[in-house]
Amino acid sequence: MTAPVPGVLAPVPGILAAASALPGDPVDNAALAARFGLDAAWIETFVGTRTRYFAADLATGERTHTLADLCAEAARRALDGAGTGAADIDFVVLATATPDRLMPATVNIVAERLGVDRVPTYQLQSGCAGAVQAFDVARMLLKEPSHRTGLVLGGDVCVKHLPLHRDVRGLPPRELVNLMVFADGAGAAVLTSARAAGRLAVPKVLNQLTGLGRRPGQTIEWYGAADLDGADRDGPPVPASEDYKAIESEVPDLAVELMWDLLSELGWAAEDVGHLLPPQLSGRMTGAITARLRDDVKAAREISCVARTGNNGNALPFLQLERLLEEIAQGGRALCLTVESSKWIKGGLALERE
Amino acid sequence: MTAPVPGVLAPVPGILAAASALPGDPVDNAALAARFGLDAAWIETFVGTRTRYFAADLATGERTHTLADLCAEAARRALDGAGTGAADIDFVVLATATPDRLMPATVNIVAERLGVDRVPTYQLQSGCAGAVQAFDVARMLLKEPSHRTGLVLGGDVCVKHLPLHRDVRGLPPRELVNLMVFADGAGAAVLTSARAAGRLAVPKVLNQLTGLGRRPGQTIEWYGAADLDGADRDGPPVPASEDYKAIESEVPDLAVELMWDLLSELGWAAEDVGHLLPPQLSGRMTGAITARLRDDVKAAREISCVARTGNNGNALPFLQLERLLEEIAQGGRALCLTVESSKWIKGGLALERE
Repeated sequence: MTAPVPGVLAPVPGILAAASALPGDPVDNAALAARFGLDAAWIETFVGTRTRYFAADLATGERTHTLADLCAEAARRALDGAGTGAADIDFVVLATATPDRLMPATVNIVAERLGVDRVPTYQLQSGCAGAVQAFDVARMLLKEPSHRTGLVLGGDVCVKHLPLHRDVRGLPPRELVNLMVFADGAGAAVLTSARAAGRLAVPKVLNQLTGLGRRPGQTIEWYGAADLDGADRDGPPVPASEDYKAIESEVPDLAVELMWDLLSELGWAAEDVGHLLPPQLSGRMTGAITARLRDDVKAAREISCVARTGNNGNALPFLQLERLLEEIAQGGRALCLTVESSKWIKGGLALERE
Repeated sequence: MTAPVPGVLAPVPGILAAASALPGDPVDNAALAARFGLDAAWIETFVGTRTRYFAADLATGERTHTLADLCAEAARRALDGAGTGAADIDFVVLATATPDRLMPATVNIVAERLGVDRVPTYQLQSGCAGAVQAFDVARMLLKEPSHRTGLVLGGDVCVKHLPLHRDVRGLPPRELVNLMVFADGAGAAVLTSARAAGRLAVPKVLNQLTGLGRRPGQTIEWYGAADLDGADRDGPPVPASEDYKAIESEVPDLAVELMWDLLSELGWAAEDVGHLLPPQLSGRMTGAITARLRDDVKAAREISCVARTGNNGNALPFLQLERLLEEIAQGGRALCLTVESSKWIKGGLALERE
């Protein structure tokens, strides 16, 4: 890749580099099963995820990484990859469902770590389509003449929502599934509005709520001081819950709909798509979704990571983009598809190597 | 105000209507003092806020309103004020520091209540400058040809972070101050990219992090399931904390800097400003900030609400805009200034009645 050409604006934004950060060592199904008294083979079959990374020591519950730690690490790698310094950054957008604190916003702690100041920052509260929403905001920011280079981040530390201190064997499946599906990580991308040979151009970002009249497929509760101290609380409430049957039935349809939305808006044919980055829910679910997408997009190479990394939410598209940048040839086209099942959002990126 | 002119785009976005929603009856200092064993006269002197509204019954701790309840109520009023229906809304942006849940995002629950679907939605995690950040995102969205009318929301339900179940008399001042300063509420504005007589045009939105090297002035902690269940937790951690001395010394300077940033970017003179909407921290702090601003902007009418409503965070600028729309004459100019002290963000709106 060559450096961005000063003063020469491209018609669409482009990615100069993408990078990621995963905490600690991978935790396999045998280790997870042993920790919680579950059956490793059942996890493999039911969820299809083989390893994941946690920002905590599972044995003690002690936190090893914050979301800011992971985002700053991914950001530094992406900045290095783009040959860009903090002084070049004109804005920062972070998407997460699981910030470190409510205030200060995690994006501003990451900015502090990177030495970024006197720029606008945005933190989007969002689930699995959040990374695409962050690209959507960055896309608009890069249309402003004062913005040339932006940092887009996504990540989640889900381990703080897991019932690490309970006997989980009595939990209903809608809660138990979280232990086996979710994980921690962060990703980053450096975007530019300038022309630069080798950019991964982003000709289209699609971000659309489709949830009217549909029940939430996922909820994550959190607690303020008034909840913690409440003497009259009826035991610990449900922390995180998945309507995995609704997810299983809805997400493949939404992914197909989203893929065709992107193709028709760009006038691309299905056979133009060389790489497919499908939604990363779990090893098994991603397999089922990809099988559906393959009915229409037969020849595309699939880039999936969830079976190795676990579902680390807003980090996932960055993990996929990092691999795509290694694989995609000049002129190659790709689609990155995400579906947020907490209130049913379609989020997609169309990508083209310049 | 006349209806927007179809097909005729204005050079800058404009506000068609603003509205708010406050929960329950006002709680005065006598009631607050009696509930927590404090001295009402001391609250009046130290904080300068006379009444506030809470989304909970203070006696029982029972929640009476969610953030989604308050946002939906404010949104309906703003839509009525603008003569706009849910079908006209092309996007929704919500700013809050205190969402109802982590997932689904509160903005999508509000969209459900309003019947809004198949549009992009964004929820910004932000403190007292969040409403301005939401206007910043809306401003960019309204530059897209597919977007004509947008709904911008801001609100906070702080009561869930207050130590309602403790004997607060032993709390250090940095925690005790939260009980006396914070409150609950929401606001909404309908924005358009079209020309419409009587619009409150927004020729400039300024949104800038200035926190590098400065310690957070405010923190709000929250808790996931792993914290709640933790057997080895060393008692309840500090839920929300204010470095009120840093806030007292920094915010007036930042407000003056922000005001001059806006004036110089627009080429407006200080005497052009007919109305001033200063940062709303508490009755006493807002008084001190306004006194500093008045050194430069002498004749402007002040619009403040915090002494009556309490500091309900992201709702405050909407409460001020609602009053501004009643008062400002055609051709009148105003500045809305906010400072986020958790990581020191300047957020300002320049406003002009068309």
